[in-house]
Amino acid sequence: MGQKAKIRKLERKVARLKAELRAAKTHTFAVSPLAPKGGFPRLPAIDGVRFSAVEAGVRYAGRADVMLAVLDPGTTIAGVFTKSATRSAPVRDCQAKIGGSPSGSGAFIVNSGNSNAFTGSNGEVAVATITREVARITGAPENRVYSASTGVIGEPLPFERITAKLTELTETLSPDGIESAARAIMTTDTYPKGAGATVELEGKRVRIAGIAKGSGMIAPDMATMLVYIFTDAQVEQSLLQGMLSELTDKTFNNITVDSDTSTSDTLLLAATGRSGVTITADTEAFRQALESVMLDLAQQVVRDGEGATKFVEVRVTGALSDADARTHALAIANSPLVKTAVAGEDPNWGRVVMAVGKSGAAADRDTLTIHFGDILVAAQGWVSPDYREEDGAAYMKNDELVIAVDIGLGTGSATVWTCDLTHGYIEINADYRS
Amino acid sequence: MGQKAKIRKLERKVARLKAELRAAKTHTFAVSPLAPKGGFPRLPAIDGVRFSAVEAGVRYAGRADVMLAVLDPGTTIAGVFTKSATRSAPVRDCQAKIGGSPSGSGAFIVNSGNSNAFTGSNGEVAVATITREVARITGAPENRVYSASTGVIGEPLPFERITAKLTELTETLSPDGIESAARAIMTTDTYPKGAGATVELEGKRVRIAGIAKGSGMIAPDMATMLVYIFTDAQVEQSLLQGMLSELTDKTFNNITVDSDTSTSDTLLLAATGRSGVTITADTEAFRQALESVMLDLAQQVVRDGEGATKFVEVRVTGALSDADARTHALAIANSPLVKTAVAGEDPNWGRVVMAVGKSGAAADRDTLTIHFGDILVAAQGWVSPDYREEDGAAYMKNDELVIAVDIGLGTGSATVWTCDLTHGYIEINADYRS
Repeated sequence: MGQKAKIRKLERKVARLKAELRAAKTHTFAVSPLAPKGGFPRLPAIDGVRFSAVEAGVRYAGRADVMLAVLDPGTTIAGVFTKSATRSAPVRDCQAKIGGSPSGSGAFIVNSGNSNAFTGSNGEVAVATITREVARITGAPENRVYSASTGVIGEPLPFERITAKLTELTETLSPDGIESAARAIMTTDTYPKGAGATVELEGKRVRIAGIAKGSGMIAPDMATMLVYIFTDAQVEQSLLQGMLSELTDKTFNNITVDSDTSTSDTLLLAATGRSGVTITADTEAFRQALESVMLDLAQQVVRDGEGATKFVEVRVTGALSDADARTHALAIANSPLVKTAVAGEDPNWGRVVMAVGKSGAAADRDTLTIHFGDILVAAQGWVSPDYREEDGAAYMKNDELVIAVDIGLGTGSATVWTCDLTHGYIEINADYRS
Repeated sequence: MGQKAKIRKLERKVARLKAELRAAKTHTFAVSPLAPKGGFPRLPAIDGVRFSAVEAGVRYAGRADVMLAVLDPGTTIAGVFTKSATRSAPVRDCQAKIGGSPSGSGAFIVNSGNSNAFTGSNGEVAVATITREVARITGAPENRVYSASTGVIGEPLPFERITAKLTELTETLSPDGIESAARAIMTTDTYPKGAGATVELEGKRVRIAGIAKGSGMIAPDMATMLVYIFTDAQVEQSLLQGMLSELTDKTFNNITVDSDTSTSDTLLLAATGRSGVTITADTEAFRQALESVMLDLAQQVVRDGEGATKFVEVRVTGALSDADARTHALAIANSPLVKTAVAGEDPNWGRVVMAVGKSGAAADRDTLTIHFGDILVAAQGWVSPDYREEDGAAYMKNDELVIAVDIGLGTGSATVWTCDLTHGYIEINADYRS
């Protein structure tokens, strides 16, 4: 081989190694590989709600970072919030307001880039100023203006950058602005999250549309979960609140990315009543539609889990109680060893046994049954005689996995959704502030 | 530049890129960077205990994988075991035996490579066969022979490979064999762990020597924690058991690598009495020496945490109770977000606030005080006015870190030791079985 040929060969080698090195160092994705296909869904417009979004420069440059949703008179509002003992100033303010005034006009104002959490008395001043100014400019009562903030913790929120944009925000309100609103509240999210449903009731259409952000469960910096759901149904406030709390237990409370809980998690549900259809405790079709929207958004949060490459449904049955089943399911879903095995496409059912064993809920080695998808892996205290490791390994190559465990002691059941634990999670969270 | 020079330059570039690529792909270390300097310590020989180790080929090739420790007559034995509901057959057998016969001869037999966990009735047969054969060949009563197994879960233990080596094991017993024993029980450990102490009591020397293995807290596959401690003190069995349980709560129960708990964790303490010094409940010097050995071994397990690059002490004070303090400390130490921040050398105190908030124990944002080492980071609900991010960032570059949190509500305190969460952890646990 001549010297020129050798140089060309070496140059090609250098280029290839550089590309490989880049790939080895970059474990993150532009958009999560688990994102729903087809992008942001077409959501039904909700009569009585208008949205706007604006670039206020709270922290990010070149993107909208504040959203406003204005709710017409006659709207009822329900809310669910983080249980963190160190929850943020806006969460405390929302909790104080919710349920206080049954119905009226209202507004949701949300910024990304700064969480206004652990910011001392400055935090309360920021919330009071923002909500007062939003009330003034929209005409909504101040006790019906709900704010939220998501982003870095512990830095004072430059709230005057937000209030300076309120005129622009109110002037650009539109019934069709929901996708822009979903984009404005993103932080480490790799895609905006929306879900909707339409139900026929009493010969009329009732619409539900919701947006969410979140990609850790739920990090204090950037990955707080915020959810805003709107419907034109007419629902009395206490019924709306009861329904929201109950359905949260079946949806958002059953997802986990990393077992961490944000100081800012906020879920608000507004019912404008404009459809003219009144919902009662017995309107099962509405409840189901609302649950489907909430479950869709919850699963989208998991699908955008930081660094996630696999979406995992953990189904536990046969526990002594539903609570025990949930304890087992969360122990499996939160186990770093289970999550890394999933990342490595390793059908490591032994780690599932370990997680059940450590959960603290009742279990017995000899009554456990474990399935990966339809594959019976283990039963009666040992690996199933029919189980072949190749089958398990082939199954683990799927993007969407079901780990099903029957405890064999009772009738309690629970389902939890999670994702795997990958190099991407480490990349995002070891390097985020730098 | 001539073509030859260009070739040389390109070849150097290729070599450098290959090395970088290897480094980027391999996040693990030959030996943990946190390993104690100076290698395995010189441990005092314990009169009345002899050790041997042998290559039985349970799973690994080319290394010893079974250890035997034989205890002379007059020895008392105490034990602490995993609380997992799916604990292994050897753990169940040890639990049934412990405390049953106050004093006598005895033996510990341990293999690595296979955990004999979740192996159905085969597991019990393996334990019964091994302990019966060890009893026969050593002359120790069968109910004083304690076995342990660590390694893959769910595969039948080829126990005949172990029993085939019992003659060789008993023929090579030596009072100086403790380091070989420590090496034989290693799995994902990157170094063998030993610690010892000598105390003067009644003008005589009392010696303590212990070994441990473990590098996750504590994985079901390979990273089970096994600890064997020996002393020539004379200690009545129930006193020995009480002391071991109490000191475990101050040492091994306060370490965590990944919040996962093995199905095989075993800690045994044997007192041969050969020093002629009788320990009572008031012999504080012995208790302190034993605690120092246990703490040293516990911290060595954390220092060998899978993928660990930082050793972290989490000190919580001012909680409503010691139990609350421990809940907070474990929430901080187990938080993936705190652990990845430490890995990234990011002084992200907001995540510490988050972890305290989610722990479930009592806390109040406005009474929290957080120090990183000597640096006051946050107090009175906000970042300290004197805190400079550069100081925090410089501190985080240390290999050994202290995160101190005062809850400001009471006098409860707890200290927990942990390590960071790195790419190395993912490498080890996503790819282990393949």
